[in-house]
Amino acid sequence: MTAIAPELAVSQWFNSPRPLSLAALRGKVIVLHAFQMLCPGCVAHALPQAERLHRLFNHRSDVAVVGLHTVFEHHAAMTPVSLEAFIHEYRLTFPIGVDEASNGNPIPVTMRRFGMRGTPTTIIIDQAGCIVEHAFGKVDDLALGVLIGSLTARAATSKVPESAADCADGVCPAPAGNAA
Amino acid sequence: MTAIAPELAVSQWFNSPRPLSLAALRGKVIVLHAFQMLCPGCVAHALPQAERLHRLFNHRSDVAVVGLHTVFEHHAAMTPVSLEAFIHEYRLTFPIGVDEASNGNPIPVTMRRFGMRGTPTTIIIDQAGCIVEHAFGKVDDLALGVLIGSLTARAATSKVPESAADCADGVCPAPAGNAA
Amino acid sequence: MTAIAPELAVSQWFNSPRPLSLAALRGKVIVLHAFQMLCPGCVAHALPQAERLHRLFNHRSDVAVVGLHTVFEHHAAMTPVSLEAFIHEYRLTFPIGVDEASNGNPIPVTMRRFGMRGTPTTIIIDQAGCIVEHAFGKVDDLALGVLIGSLTARAATSKVPESAADCADGVCPAPAGNAA
Amino acid sequence: MTAIAPELAVSQWFNSPRPLSLAALRGKVIVLHAFQMLCPGCVAHALPQAERLHRLFNHRSDVAVVGLHTVFEHHAAMTPVSLEAFIHEYRLTFPIGVDEASNGNPIPVTMRRFGMRGTPTTIIIDQAGCIVEHAFGKVDDLALGVLIGSLTARAATSKVPESAADCADGVCPAPAGNAA
Repeated sequence: MTAIAPELAVSQWFNSPRPLSLAALRGKVIVLHAFQMLCPGCVAHALPQAERLHRLFNHRSDVAVVGLHTVFEHHAAMTPVSLEAFIHEYRLTFPIGVDEASNGNPIPVTMRRFGMRGTPTTIIIDQAGCIVEHAFGKVDDLALGVLIGSLTARAATSKVPESAADCADGVCPAPAGNAA
Repeated sequence: MTAIAPELAVSQWFNSPRPLSLAALRGKVIVLHAFQMLCPGCVAHALPQAERLHRLFNHRSDVAVVGLHTVFEHHAAMTPVSLEAFIHEYRLTFPIGVDEASNGNPIPVTMRRFGMRGTPTTIIIDQAGCIVEHAFGKVDDLALGVLIGSLTARAATSKVPESAADCADGVCPAPAGNAA
Repeated sequence: MTAIAPELAVSQWFNSPRPLSLAALRGKVIVLHAFQMLCPGCVAHALPQAERLHRLFNHRSDVAVVGLHTVFEHHAAMTPVSLEAFIHEYRLTFPIGVDEASNGNPIPVTMRRFGMRGTPTTIIIDQAGCIVEHAFGKVDDLALGVLIGSLTARAATSKVPESAADCADGVCPAPAGNAA
Repeated sequence: MTAIAPELAVSQWFNSPRPLSLAALRGKVIVLHAFQMLCPGCVAHALPQAERLHRLFNHRSDVAVVGLHTVFEHHAAMTPVSLEAFIHEYRLTFPIGVDEASNGNPIPVTMRRFGMRGTPTTIIIDQAGCIVEHAFGKVDDLALGVLIGSLTARAATSKVPESAADCADGVCPAPAGNAA
């Protein structure tokens, strides 16, 4: 059990000229939105929220919104070809990675690493790489804004933990296991 | 130009034990909902409206709600395999047919026959087979209810045109052509 | 117990050049919307629905939407002076009557006559003066539209009961008494 | 022109055992929500947002949500008697003050002091008493959360300006005057 965010495993990226990694984004607050394109709660709430967040921080360099297509059911129905059309039709503009398929397990690699319980899942990673929020289901806009605002302000005043070794276990909620 | 509803051309049915046809439904008011599973307006408004209509009339025999998956773009992204998962995840319970693909034309057969301009399209067909409403885009619940209610009441008082030959051209809006 | 609509008792009218009565509206379908200006469910759902209905039928002579301000609590907070500003700010355009205060009873006269249980209450009266729907709380747009549409169509085919004596008890739900 | 928040002038408080003042709240982030009970935008958006903010921070001592009933029209329709019933019916639980009436001016005293342009108006005051946001109309939940979160984090790392004299004019938007 750890509060340090594991790395992404992504087989294909959309809306990004090059592959992204959490390591390369270190120093920013990262909002990781895991979704499935045929998940009604993702389409109605989580994806519009991620898009709004992306547009709110698009002109700033301290917050990165990253989407992750974590297909764990109906795999043949949600291929990258379908996802690409979905991204186009829903006008999503933030970077979205396809979570790498697992060998012999319906749950893809990154989803297992983070112990996500389903979709939508919203994970907030601070500038040092610590997971400070791991939420399954609908997340309130106001509460999410307050958390991200407080993390970015902390950075501006250099109270950011210098390395993941500083992650306080008491502060970081342990991700619930999906018993991989 | 005609106000008589052409027949459906469907390659596969979901939520129906057997193929449906407008001919076999003659005598009922038919609400035909044409959609694409990756059309945001369909997902947000038209499909929930069709589902509510279906549940409202489920115990009555005088109104039939029929869905039609009219894929005219992103064909590889919206195959029947994807549609099946979509229907499952969105808990749609009304019969849905896959509009038959056209040879050498991205617009499928039924969509062309009706001259639909896009999705969502809502078409109301009266008991004699006349098209009495052909709407592209969002349809108001109250206005739709008033129209269907007035058609069903007409039936109950035997003012239903006995055959499509009775379709009054003045009453039936001519469908706008998509210039097939 | 009766299904014949009792007459309105109104002390003041807004949005109407002259007093209205159910008797004078006989022959139309009447949608009676009882509300209080400080009732959250009325403000969020019932009043916008009544306004939409009014605009939908504004050009027709067969349906009349009538509002009724049935103040049964916080009387000093919801005087006609406050109601007038409320009607102005919420851009309500249908006729609205102030239900006549009762002597020694917080429930006003019309509200008692109809046995309304609270606000919002929606009552549908057919062309012969029979109560065909009496609903407390939120009413679904589609279902309301279907009911009104079927009543107006019935009129057009002269199946309207000629007098209230024809009200079928089996069809008309008896209003729940508020034990006046 | 100044960015220092002027003091409130309140004739009556609801939801507070004693009168509040900005001076007494110094050291907290203050969210001042100015509204009128018959303002549709306030009822639909701003007041629910203020209530959600209040509940979000209710267990913390670093943020205070304060409502202000700034009646500048329909004065007879929005007396404290009506406001009290409104607060009760809409289940508002944050402190709400009645903005003091002006002599010979329809705009009340605090509204004039802050140069508010109408309702709803949302004003954010930082721990040193500087106005850091002055918004007329609908405010986005995410953006509001980010701002409040960043202000509270700043406090936690003692970057709070020690006195209003430190208010940076470049940072604090000057309130638009209503030409008092």
